[in-house]
Amino acid sequence: MSKFWNSTVARQKDQNRRWQGRLHEIIFEADTPASKWFDIVLIVSILLSVIVVMLDSVRHIREAHGDLLHLAEWFFTILFTAEYLLRLVCVGRPLLYATSFFGIVDLMAILPTYLDLLFPGSYHHLLVIRLLRVLRIFRVFKLVQYLGEANLLIQVLRSSRQKITVFLFTVLTLVVVLGSLMYVIEGEQNGFTSIPKSIYWAIVTLTTVGYGDISPKTNIGQALAAVVMILGYSIIVVPTGIVTAEFTQALTRQKITSRVCAECSAEGHHSDAVYCKQCGKKL
Amino acid sequence: MSKFWNSTVARQKDQNRRWQGRLHEIIFEADTPASKWFDIVLIVSILLSVIVVMLDSVRHIREAHGDLLHLAEWFFTILFTAEYLLRLVCVGRPLLYATSFFGIVDLMAILPTYLDLLFPGSYHHLLVIRLLRVLRIFRVFKLVQYLGEANLLIQVLRSSRQKITVFLFTVLTLVVVLGSLMYVIEGEQNGFTSIPKSIYWAIVTLTTVGYGDISPKTNIGQALAAVVMILGYSIIVVPTGIVTAEFTQALTRQKITSRVCAECSAEGHHSDAVYCKQCGKKL
Amino acid sequence: MSKFWNSTVARQKDQNRRWQGRLHEIIFEADTPASKWFDIVLIVSILLSVIVVMLDSVRHIREAHGDLLHLAEWFFTILFTAEYLLRLVCVGRPLLYATSFFGIVDLMAILPTYLDLLFPGSYHHLLVIRLLRVLRIFRVFKLVQYLGEANLLIQVLRSSRQKITVFLFTVLTLVVVLGSLMYVIEGEQNGFTSIPKSIYWAIVTLTTVGYGDISPKTNIGQALAAVVMILGYSIIVVPTGIVTAEFTQALTRQKITSRVCAECSAEGHHSDAVYCKQCGKKL
Amino acid sequence: MSKFWNSTVARQKDQNRRWQGRLHEIIFEADTPASKWFDIVLIVSILLSVIVVMLDSVRHIREAHGDLLHLAEWFFTILFTAEYLLRLVCVGRPLLYATSFFGIVDLMAILPTYLDLLFPGSYHHLLVIRLLRVLRIFRVFKLVQYLGEANLLIQVLRSSRQKITVFLFTVLTLVVVLGSLMYVIEGEQNGFTSIPKSIYWAIVTLTTVGYGDISPKTNIGQALAAVVMILGYSIIVVPTGIVTAEFTQALTRQKITSRVCAECSAEGHHSDAVYCKQCGKKL
Repeated sequence: MSKFWNSTVARQKDQNRRWQGRLHEIIFEADTPASKWFDIVLIVSILLSVIVVMLDSVRHIREAHGDLLHLAEWFFTILFTAEYLLRLVCVGRPLLYATSFFGIVDLMAILPTYLDLLFPGSYHHLLVIRLLRVLRIFRVFKLVQYLGEANLLIQVLRSSRQKITVFLFTVLTLVVVLGSLMYVIEGEQNGFTSIPKSIYWAIVTLTTVGYGDISPKTNIGQALAAVVMILGYSIIVVPTGIVTAEFTQALTRQKITSRVCAECSAEGHHSDAVYCKQCGKKL
Repeated sequence: MSKFWNSTVARQKDQNRRWQGRLHEIIFEADTPASKWFDIVLIVSILLSVIVVMLDSVRHIREAHGDLLHLAEWFFTILFTAEYLLRLVCVGRPLLYATSFFGIVDLMAILPTYLDLLFPGSYHHLLVIRLLRVLRIFRVFKLVQYLGEANLLIQVLRSSRQKITVFLFTVLTLVVVLGSLMYVIEGEQNGFTSIPKSIYWAIVTLTTVGYGDISPKTNIGQALAAVVMILGYSIIVVPTGIVTAEFTQALTRQKITSRVCAECSAEGHHSDAVYCKQCGKKL
Repeated sequence: MSKFWNSTVARQKDQNRRWQGRLHEIIFEADTPASKWFDIVLIVSILLSVIVVMLDSVRHIREAHGDLLHLAEWFFTILFTAEYLLRLVCVGRPLLYATSFFGIVDLMAILPTYLDLLFPGSYHHLLVIRLLRVLRIFRVFKLVQYLGEANLLIQVLRSSRQKITVFLFTVLTLVVVLGSLMYVIEGEQNGFTSIPKSIYWAIVTLTTVGYGDISPKTNIGQALAAVVMILGYSIIVVPTGIVTAEFTQALTRQKITSRVCAECSAEGHHSDAVYCKQCGKKL
Repeated sequence: MSKFWNSTVARQKDQNRRWQGRLHEIIFEADTPASKWFDIVLIVSILLSVIVVMLDSVRHIREAHGDLLHLAEWFFTILFTAEYLLRLVCVGRPLLYATSFFGIVDLMAILPTYLDLLFPGSYHHLLVIRLLRVLRIFRVFKLVQYLGEANLLIQVLRSSRQKITVFLFTVLTLVVVLGSLMYVIEGEQNGFTSIPKSIYWAIVTLTTVGYGDISPKTNIGQALAAVVMILGYSIIVVPTGIVTAEFTQALTRQKITSRVCAECSAEGHHSDAVYCKQCGKKL
């Protein structure tokens, strides 16, 4: 009897594991038709739920169709809750998933609606958290095919990190010095009411956004503004050059690493190399 | 008698074919003087007809010279109708042409004016279709010499398609998150009346357009706006780097032939090389 | 007597030629101290005369110091007239100089002031011609050292001419189609009063200038505007890629052409080439 | 006695030198834990003191917490004075330090507060000098690790200096000619009150900033503005190409060592190459 029982439990366990594995395949991978359908349904749900939150922020739509939007919000929350629970069930280490970046994003996609039940009126303040749902689409992309591309991006950004930091720091210094100079030149009567506001103007101008909500009125101010503009117009050239040079290097490296030395398995030979540069054998 | 008749029909057919071939050469090719003249006349007609539609939209010109513009519109419509019919006649498979991209553009260049006879008043709504005529110029360019260049462009854009998609998707996500954050921070009283409008503001700012029709008023809002600006100013560097690296690769590939030395199998010889640069043998 | 006379004339002619040659050296070249001083004085005069014209356009300065500016204008005109005459005298073929680009610019630098004597009041209309003086500075630069750099620029722009034309044409087509679409969507009541004006808006938006004098008000209009902005933000990447790739090629070509084959004088060997790629001799 | 005395003095001197050396290590270097802590404290102090100056410029904060900010200002001034004196003491040649770029920046970081004692009210005018403190952060960065990166930047900018000068000069000429043309076309009634103001407009437009404080109203003016915009949108491509090509060259040069094969004199080996890629001999 106990033997039979054990065997039943084992079979049950085995079935559970198989069922769990199948679920994991559908939810976390992207190769089988079922998992592709799951991804498509998920992307459409995410986009629809994001649109619902957006429409809900438009006053006249909220006033006309508020109930419908509320219903839709609950529909997607329940759907995402089910998905979240399924993910928790089928991963090997649920805690690791729950504390991972996407685990937290998944939780934040459903939490605000439940919090709204506890603290009515918190809806508005949790709106941005609600919209973080849009980040969940990246997970789906990540699974499919864009991983390799993103890796190249990350690699390039990492290798040009220090140069970019120097550049950003130079820009910030420029903006602080030029902004405070403008504060002294133009003064409060022309809209440059404080140094932080003048620095805001300097950023608006240097990045060539140019709202025009604050703009210099005096002659010297306009001359300095012209200098800021030409600076902003020109210096972007420097990080562009850095990042592009790194991309060219990275792409060339990709092209290079195809041949492997038969002797020592060294990679990275130039296309015109005759001998392995590591062990000296003919390629 | 029937023999004579057959021969006459055959000669007629032959003449038709020759006449058709000549017409095809003039209209679709660009090597003979006649076809070059056809292209020039066509480009000038297209540009003039586009100018007529534009002028017709300016109220005081329409009120003063409406009849003249109407006449000019009919003149170009009849001209383009004749051209369309000639094209239909001289191509081998008229249906294939009629359903091709340029076939549809050609039809849309003439249809609105005729539709205006059937449904008076539809003129205004079909205005954009009328202006699609400008696309017809590309056909002429395509025939001449820009094909090779366009091919390089398409090849580069295709090979960097995935990276560009990742970039565009990141930008859209940024814009959604930052826009909704701004909606919560600034609120309706400062012009950020809904999330879609705030996203519109985020796009205006991130792309460094900066209309200034909506701009942040609060301190935190301006600080966040500054972050959006610096982001927008900087991240364009990434796709620039990607596309430029691909162009550099494509150009290098064009310049370096795929010839291989028969003696030492060295690759990567320049297009003007006569001897192998590795072993000195004639290529 | 006649012999002595001839010899005097010859000596005179010789002296003239030597004097002419010396003058030519001072004015047209940049190697001797005298010619360097001439260049510096010329640049300062040009800049000062440009500043005079600028100041003269500022109403309150003109009203206060009109006479002084008028005097300065005549001083520079006489100076530039003397320079123009000297140039005419010392060049070998005066007519060729007078009809060259810089000959015409030199003439236009002095003509407006004299024309003002003949036709009082023409001053204002000839103002731009007056400011073309600023172009004369390029002549000085051209003489010194920037010629080589400009040559590289011209070479790159020439080799990417066709691709740039395709790009500019695409931009113009986009602007016509998007502008007219916006005219239909927004209509006259929102500032899009005609198609040319809508095209102006499309250019303002696509180039990310964003004045904000015309901006979409309707939801669909703002959505389309967002598309135009993202387009304008992104597509500049394409010509950047083209031109940069050409520059990289041109620079690499410059670096390559240093070694010359001793046998056949062929240039353009790669830095890792062992044998001349033209004649097969060891380098 | 004198011997003992001498020895005491010598030991004292020695101790002084050792103490001085230790101080120099802490202040000027970045390898030991003590010097790292010194750098961190210094950066935080600089940032805090900059924030104090900024907050002091905001009217309502100054009115509410003026005394506190004044106190903080004095605290940082005394701190930086102590640091300045310590630097003077521990460097080998104090005068050289005092007249160096960072020596002057260090002095200017403390001088304004003392000057305020002598000339009350000079505070506001010396505000920008006060904010130059932010430059001091660069010193800290310089010590750590960014030196190499900055060197590459400087090297690239130096080698593309001439081309950049030609570009900037072309932009300035364009701006002068187009600005004055606009002054003639639009005139004073449309905001283009003088040539300098029109040049300011041209810079605002060419750099794609686009405040919209001055914008063309006439049709011809808007057409010319469209040309300026497309120019500004396009020509930035040229310096981008120049600088990027130089960066690509510089990076390639860094990766490829100047090692030469002793056997076949081949150059251009990668930094990780062990054997000559041409002849297979050990490098």
